[in-house]
Amino acid sequence: MARLDAVSKQTAHKIEKLAETVMRSVKGGQNPFVEIPIRSLANVKFNEKRRLVELGNQKQRRYFFNVAMAKKFMQTFLVSDACKELIDAGKTTSIRDLYYITKHTIGETKQNTFEEQDESDPIIEDLEVAVDALREELHLFASRKGSMVGPITIRDSGDTIDLRRMGSGGWAVPSIVEENVIQFVRHEAKYILLIEKDAVWTRFNEDKFWKRERCIILQGGGQPPRGVRRLVQRLHSELKLPVYVLVDNDPWGFYIYSVMKQGSINLAYESMRMAVPDARFIGLSSFDKEAYQLPSNVAIKMDEGDEARAKQMLGYPWFQAKQWQREIQEMVRAGVKFELEALSRRGISFITEEYLPRKLKEKDWLE
Amino acid sequence: MARLDAVSKQTAHKIEKLAETVMRSVKGGQNPFVEIPIRSLANVKFNEKRRLVELGNQKQRRYFFNVAMAKKFMQTFLVSDACKELIDAGKTTSIRDLYYITKHTIGETKQNTFEEQDESDPIIEDLEVAVDALREELHLFASRKGSMVGPITIRDSGDTIDLRRMGSGGWAVPSIVEENVIQFVRHEAKYILLIEKDAVWTRFNEDKFWKRERCIILQGGGQPPRGVRRLVQRLHSELKLPVYVLVDNDPWGFYIYSVMKQGSINLAYESMRMAVPDARFIGLSSFDKEAYQLPSNVAIKMDEGDEARAKQMLGYPWFQAKQWQREIQEMVRAGVKFELEALSRRGISFITEEYLPRKLKEKDWLE
Repeated sequence: MARLDAVSKQTAHKIEKLAETVMRSVKGGQNPFVEIPIRSLANVKFNEKRRLVELGNQKQRRYFFNVAMAKKFMQTFLVSDACKELIDAGKTTSIRDLYYITKHTIGETKQNTFEEQDESDPIIEDLEVAVDALREELHLFASRKGSMVGPITIRDSGDTIDLRRMGSGGWAVPSIVEENVIQFVRHEAKYILLIEKDAVWTRFNEDKFWKRERCIILQGGGQPPRGVRRLVQRLHSELKLPVYVLVDNDPWGFYIYSVMKQGSINLAYESMRMAVPDARFIGLSSFDKEAYQLPSNVAIKMDEGDEARAKQMLGYPWFQAKQWQREIQEMVRAGVKFELEALSRRGISFITEEYLPRKLKEKDWLE
Repeated sequence: MARLDAVSKQTAHKIEKLAETVMRSVKGGQNPFVEIPIRSLANVKFNEKRRLVELGNQKQRRYFFNVAMAKKFMQTFLVSDACKELIDAGKTTSIRDLYYITKHTIGETKQNTFEEQDESDPIIEDLEVAVDALREELHLFASRKGSMVGPITIRDSGDTIDLRRMGSGGWAVPSIVEENVIQFVRHEAKYILLIEKDAVWTRFNEDKFWKRERCIILQGGGQPPRGVRRLVQRLHSELKLPVYVLVDNDPWGFYIYSVMKQGSINLAYESMRMAVPDARFIGLSSFDKEAYQLPSNVAIKMDEGDEARAKQMLGYPWFQAKQWQREIQEMVRAGVKFELEALSRRGISFITEEYLPRKLKEKDWLE
């Protein structure tokens, strides 16, 4: 058994407690059950005060002596047992791997514990909410994308890494970025800039924007994966740095910002650890086409899907503020969208030398 | 104008020569043309001796005074002009960005130089073959994925980076890895291991396989992007290190290996710079299910597409060797495929502690 850090010790303890509760019912002659917060849409709400998409209080009980529930009950304990073993061994793995690890044929039957990964994934989410631990704390990682550079020194698994000297490539952001893996050593950053696109991030890195402006730049290859979101949240809350999000001017870009800001409906139970309600939308705004004189031939006509999506966003509780209604309505009115790359029409480094500095100077962002 | 490195100087010179040739025809009263090697299937062949998929000798001439060709002629020079400017400025950009940079409305007309990116991308490929330069040498980058760690110190854009101390994340492999950007400083590696999957790479990194085995480990998130392929090729040819490829046991995994080894039909003109004919296929082999006792419930039934694909591979000229026919035939016969993660059924670190060490010891690979 590896020596456990504080985070892992706590998570292992939570799993043990879950098992103990069940064992106690068994010994007491009762029908053992696990209590799991319900993750369906009906139990998700937007908390106006905390500005987060959150889970409500509804719970369900999963009983062992119940024909409809027994298999899931067994699966829950297979998964929690495997996670406990991972934690004790000081190892981490993917949810795909966990599926293979826990897949057995039961006794002499032809029944498998799990047929496909789409059976084990929801069980992992159940366990997350049941013991109140992120899957990363259960030592499970998601696929990862994304890179980061900036005026900060970090420690990653014991290695000290200077993100001021990461060349053109940058540090590849891992999926698990909890305190037991990643620590922030020292920094001179004034803010964090999360960029939707890899190619645009490369422009910012090549132009050494982060050095001139003293900021940390991250990209998550489109919709940022869990590791990038969690890291931004930690940088924001622990180092007290403001977060700016730079995305395409289209419904998908707005959605990326929205998930970064208040979490998503699917993963509502994790918003508190993943979302940054103070995150600022720095661009591309629907009004930038005029303010920054983008020629009309770099506009892209929105299709029906885009339009429906944009109209739907007008109804989201977190986009009710006047400035957001104005922003989305202008997109719908114009019927066009713009990619960040459209700014290159004004010059290859226009985005790093004129667009973003002016945006920041004029405090031209939305919250 | 930035001070140009040797690679960039050479590429700039190639573009200038192209332009000069055209200008000379104009001054001589001739119809100016560009000569471009043909990139269609008919002009692609497998060179048995060099073991590479290569372009043949067929060329086409693109004339300026020709209604059908004039637009493409103009586009070729727009793109080459933009690349020359990039090189002179010491900047790089994405092919998406290049599309925006070169998109203009022509004079008072409603005609655009390019309507969509699918018009500018083939022109870039034309330019690559016309001046014999990789697009990376034209200062254009592709999207990138992938990470790397191992017993090697590199220089990336002037920063010295020790890939022995990159924590759990690793160094994010950029798209442009030519000598002017990336240099190898010193290393103690004995070989290179290219792993198909991010999650499996994380297992190898976490278990410090690269330290114990003295190897460089890379992953390209599925089909490796250009940056990863080119970097593997450079590590192989400059440091004289053997390359092992570790992929799923399915037609897609074999295809990934095959592209790494002899290049692809689409990018046949780049095989010489991107492919490693000596690359070894270390697994998963169709015979590993028995040799490593994988339970049958981790096998995945092949669908019709998989089967057709596998049968097609039996006909590829580069899979004609007896060992490859045997390998693919066994996959077709069994009708099942296996993911790398299936090995976790034997234990979470089975792949790093038993599978790969035994494979290497028994020289159980295919070439």
